[in-house]
Order: sequence, then C-alpha cells, then structure tokens
Amino acid sequence: MRVLGVDPGLTRCGLGIVDSDPRRTLSLVEVGVLRTPPDMPIQQRLLTISAGIEEWIVRHDVEAVAVERVFAQHNVASVMGTAQVAGLAMVAAARAGLPLGMHTPSEVKAAVTGSGRADKPQVQEMVRRILRLAERPEPADAADALALAVCHLWRGGTPGVGPTARHATPAQEAWARAELAARRSRPVTRSR
Amino acid sequence: MRVLGVDPGLTRCGLGIVDSDPRRTLSLVEVGVLRTPPDMPIQQRLLTISAGIEEWIVRHDVEAVAVERVFAQHNVASVMGTAQVAGLAMVAAARAGLPLGMHTPSEVKAAVTGSGRADKPQVQEMVRRILRLAERPEPADAADALALAVCHLWRGGTPGVGPTARHATPAQEAWARAELAARRSRPVTRSR
Repeated sequence: MRVLGVDPGLTRCGLGIVDSDPRRTLSLVEVGVLRTPPDMPIQQRLLTISAGIEEWIVRHDVEAVAVERVFAQHNVASVMGTAQVAGLAMVAAARAGLPLGMHTPSEVKAAVTGSGRADKPQVQEMVRRILRLAERPEPADAADALALAVCHLWRGGTPGVGPTARHATPAQEAWARAELAARRSRPVTRSR
Repeated sequence: MRVLGVDPGLTRCGLGIVDSDPRRTLSLVEVGVLRTPPDMPIQQRLLTISAGIEEWIVRHDVEAVAVERVFAQHNVASVMGTAQVAGLAMVAAARAGLPLGMHTPSEVKAAVTGSGRADKPQVQEMVRRILRLAERPEPADAADALALAVCHLWRGGTPGVGPTARHATPAQEAWARAELAARRSRPVTRSR
C-alpha cells in the first residue's frame, strides 16, 4: 500500500509518500515540498501546486491520498489558501480514482507520537524513527506530509469520506448519475 | 468580450456567461447552477464542480473568468467549501490561460445596483434589466454569477491579479520558470 500525504499550503505544500509492506513495515518513497512565490498570481500558484500533486500521484503510482483536514483558526487570511490547496489535493485524488483520507492535525500527531499535542520537533523525530531515516525530515511541512501518510496507513481511511475506486460500484454509478444531473444547466428565458 | 462569472458554492455553484459587444451592450449567453448533493463524498463534489466549470469554459469559448472573492465570515464550516470551489475556478482559469478577476460581493452589488449593500432581489432585478431578460434569474446564485460577469466587464480586471494570456509575456515566462523551480522536490537522506 502506497500513500501520498499532503500537508496543504500555498507557500510550502508538503508531500510525502510512504509504503507499507505485507508485514506493515513502513518505508519512505519520496518526500518534498512544492513552493510557490508570494508574488506569483494566486491562480498560477494554485495551478502549480495542483499540477505538482497530480505529477507525484502518477509518477509514484500512488494508491491512496491523505490530506490534512483544515480548520478555520486565528489566521483567516492564510487559512483560505490552505483550504484551497487541500481542495486541489482532494480533487487530484478523485480524478485519479484513489481513496481519500482526511486527518486532523491532532489525529496525525497522536498517530506518530502517541500525543495529539506533540510539538513539531517531536513529530519530525518520530517520523525519522518510524521510517528509519538518517536525518529528521526538513522542513516541518515535509515531516507533516510523511506523518499524514503514516497516520493514514495505521488508522485506515476516514469514515464518512468514501473511497473512490477505479472500478465503479453501484454507489459510484449513483454518484456519476448525480454528477450528470448536477451539471445540467438551467437557462433562463431571454428577451431579444 | 465573453466573461464567465462564478459564484462559488459546494451545494450550488452559480455560473453565468455574459457577452459585451463593441458598443458595450451586454447580453446573456448562458446561466445555470452546478449542484452537488451533500451526501456525495466531498472530493467527488469538488471534482464534479471543477469539471463543470472547465466544461463551460471550453464549450462557450470564454475569454475571462470572474470569481467572487471569498472572505471567512461567521459560517466557518460553509466558507471552507466555498473557498475550495473558488480555488477550483481560479485553477480552471489558469489552466485555460484566461485572465482572472476577483471581485468582492460589495463590488459586484455596487457595479450592478449602484449600492454595495443592495439585497438579493435588487441584484436579481438589475441583472434582469441590464441583460434585457424576461424574468429575474433564479436562484440567487445564478443571478450573482451573472452580476459577477457584468461587474468584470464594467470594472475591468482586478489590479494585482494578473491576467494569464495564451501567449507568454516575459513576466509569464518568469512565472513558468518559478513554477518549475517550485516543483523541484527535496528528498531527505534515507537509511536503508
């Protein structure tokens, strides 16, 4: 099982891919950070990140995607960009027909450190140990992305966030019909 | 000039396309609402809306996209979905190489009614008059999408939100270079 973890962000979007073998031993596949400069037009930043996530999914033949569940907190301005990047990661998973898991920061921290209140260095250190790395993953966004993938592999998918398989089940066929219905436009009468 | 206005929303996403002729007379091309059911998995809802927006852009050969600028307000839960849909519309514009305009609700209201505090029926009525329609556009999301397109045509693009033309300018080439740099991943050392 190969999972891509996405720590969403506009300036730095952490990506980390982790494999779980049949004995449930985890290993690092790739980790990195997509960066976009603040002076790039916002739509170009979003497109760059979207294309980057999709490229990672294809290049590594990812089997599931785990994304941090974003909450509106104090810094409202930055949370909007974070929510948008999370949305792009969710769409990338759906487009590739992959199961999606959404995990809160405290679930991720608890999964890798045993405490939902662990600080960043503790998360980085535990990710290093779990994946048997020589160094702590840097920056914290990269470590968080790996922690998300680890959390997903250990906790399983998120109830209520249904997987989307490559082959359609009856439920998925129902979604597809609903999609078509949703796309139907409703033109208003126009007077010429 | 043909502009697609997008009133972002997860349950109802308003889309409206307006043409401006050389005499600056505006006319309706198409208006509608993309709907996704609340019980559809979130990533499928986002994908459905993303595909719908892209389909409208291509089918009508849209030349610019105007999206409502979303602010975090009281209803934090719904604003996250709204922000994500807005992000998808922004990415759709960038992917198609189209200029993007972001307009606040009060800018849009002021553009079509003269008052930034106009209520929804007033916006619907003014959209009906400006586009010479027989009926007020329904629901309000559809009218808001048309109002966004009208606002964009009358106000012009948004300063600071750069257009992305189909042909690269020196600035766009610089963005493209920055995109490539941003995509470079930074693998950490792994111990095997």
